Amino acid sequence: MKKTPYEVEITEVGPRDGLQAEAHFLPTEQKIELINNLIGAGLRRIEFSSFVSPRAVPQLADAEDVIAGVKRSPDVILTALVPNARGAARAAEAGVDEFVVFVSASESHNRKNVNCSIADSLAGFQNVAGIADEAGIPVRGAIATAFGCPFEGDVPLEQLSDIAMQFRDLGFTGYVLGDTTGMATPPLVSAACSHLSNEVPDMELGLHFHNTRGIGLCNVMAGLEAGIRKYDSSIGGLGGCPFAPAATGNICTEDLVYLLHEMGIETGLDLPKLMEIAQKMEELLGHKLPGQIMKAGLRLDLHPIDAVQAAAG
Amino acid sequence: MKKTPYEVEITEVGPRDGLQAEAHFLPTEQKIELINNLIGAGLRRIEFSSFVSPRAVPQLADAEDVIAGVKRSPDVILTALVPNARGAARAAEAGVDEFVVFVSASESHNRKNVNCSIADSLAGFQNVAGIADEAGIPVRGAIATAFGCPFEGDVPLEQLSDIAMQFRDLGFTGYVLGDTTGMATPPLVSAACSHLSNEVPDMELGLHFHNTRGIGLCNVMAGLEAGIRKYDSSIGGLGGCPFAPAATGNICTEDLVYLLHEMGIETGLDLPKLMEIAQKMEELLGHKLPGQIMKAGLRLDLHPIDAVQAAAG
Repeated sequence: MKKTPYEVEITEVGPRDGLQAEAHFLPTEQKIELINNLIGAGLRRIEFSSFVSPRAVPQLADAEDVIAGVKRSPDVILTALVPNARGAARAAEAGVDEFVVFVSASESHNRKNVNCSIADSLAGFQNVAGIADEAGIPVRGAIATAFGCPFEGDVPLEQLSDIAMQFRDLGFTGYVLGDTTGMATPPLVSAACSHLSNEVPDMELGLHFHNTRGIGLCNVMAGLEAGIRKYDSSIGGLGGCPFAPAATGNICTEDLVYLLHEMGIETGLDLPKLMEIAQKMEELLGHKLPGQIMKAGLRLDLHPIDAVQAAAG
Repeated sequence: MKKTPYEVEITEVGPRDGLQAEAHFLPTEQKIELINNLIGAGLRRIEFSSFVSPRAVPQLADAEDVIAGVKRSPDVILTALVPNARGAARAAEAGVDEFVVFVSASESHNRKNVNCSIADSLAGFQNVAGIADEAGIPVRGAIATAFGCPFEGDVPLEQLSDIAMQFRDLGFTGYVLGDTTGMATPPLVSAACSHLSNEVPDMELGLHFHNTRGIGLCNVMAGLEAGIRKYDSSIGGLGGCPFAPAATGNICTEDLVYLLHEMGIETGLDLPKLMEIAQKMEELLGHKLPGQIMKAGLRLDLHPIDAVQAAAG
């Protein structure tokens, strides 16, 4: 794995992508404490909420109150999902550090998600970019369903590069490929990263995987092999999939960090603290989360020999 | 990934390694049906039970009755775990196709598991090999805690090659590195495979991973990169970890097959049938299993656009 980057930056998306999939509203105070704890564990970019309509995503209706309560620091970027100019104006007013705008790679998913065509979404980003520019706020783009659409299936690579080029022309600082419903596979990741590094070399690329089909961290390995240094993940594996209620959502932050650290890749994150935060989320939410390392402990957290009955094999 | 093998052979270990971790005894008839269904899905090597003391592992006390009930076929190898000469005699009498004997890579785990030193375990295999030889039954060796011991921590690579050479001298046909408590990582897998292919090039190596810490399939990717063609896995991810009750056990057969097929690697297995078997296991056992693909469906199992409320990101 020659191209594996030495250092990886993780964007924590649990407070946004994770909590929006929860059945119940996590109280604002608990969201603030979660984000403060994530910062305490070393995270420097957190997608903390979404400035969509509170009617569409009631779980995140408190975006303004959340950011107002978080302990700010110059080296921490609080990112918010912004669907349109109205959301951008709210987010700018609230003091958000960075906007993320999103469009799907497939027409049918974009229409289902935001009720317009891909071209209309991209046109709408002009206004968002204008608001951001005026407020001095950087914008990143997210391409949803980048590795497959649950309605249409495979997505042509040219669709990804077309959108990425328009992001670039809008002045965005980078973009992320979102595996919205967990359809990415290692070969698809390799192909997309290779295509995009050739076609849009001047835009920084990040990867946002879901573990819906159990291979989320395998896709990270393919991304590392392709030289990608930015990954989104969710504390505890918080989140879900709207198409499969029993399936998991985003890849789990602390499991990802465990993998990276074991591979000798620095993240700057405090893994034991992340494990504690994930355990606490399970308590707050009242149900188990998919994260594994918080249940098993680190590999060299040894056991006293008389504590447990061992089993063969 | 130049060395990725085109074809991989999966040994299904759910009926043994999986069921021994279940709190309740799965009725013999249901075990037989499970194994027959696994054969129907294309599996050609199944570790179907264990000839240990029924007092030690009551869940597998019916090994003789299980194999007597399975539809045998010349191209299907029914393997059993055999702890000692007494178990080997029982297994030979029952008509087992292949023995697996096991020893831990660490003294403390071997003592905890089978109450003797590694040297004594290896000496005892002489008798097992004799019984196998007389009955014309091939023997494979398994090295438990090969990627780390829950009591001692890291295991020296020389310990693995020393045991593998003794397996070879006993006339075994191959061996497997068992990640008994999920301590393997991609770099450790690469290092072990490289060391063993240099030191013991004449013994076929297989890998047996647990997903205890969420990176079991990442370890498979490292194994593929090292050219390993044989993997053990458990239907539905059936199993567990004695050191962490909430953690998962063996890597999940159908998730592994999904990954391999998506990577263009043939297994000869019928993935939809495996998913059905895993779903049925959840019903029979009355609890969820860790397997993901059975919950989410295949990536190109598309959804009607009006069926579900999509979510951004």
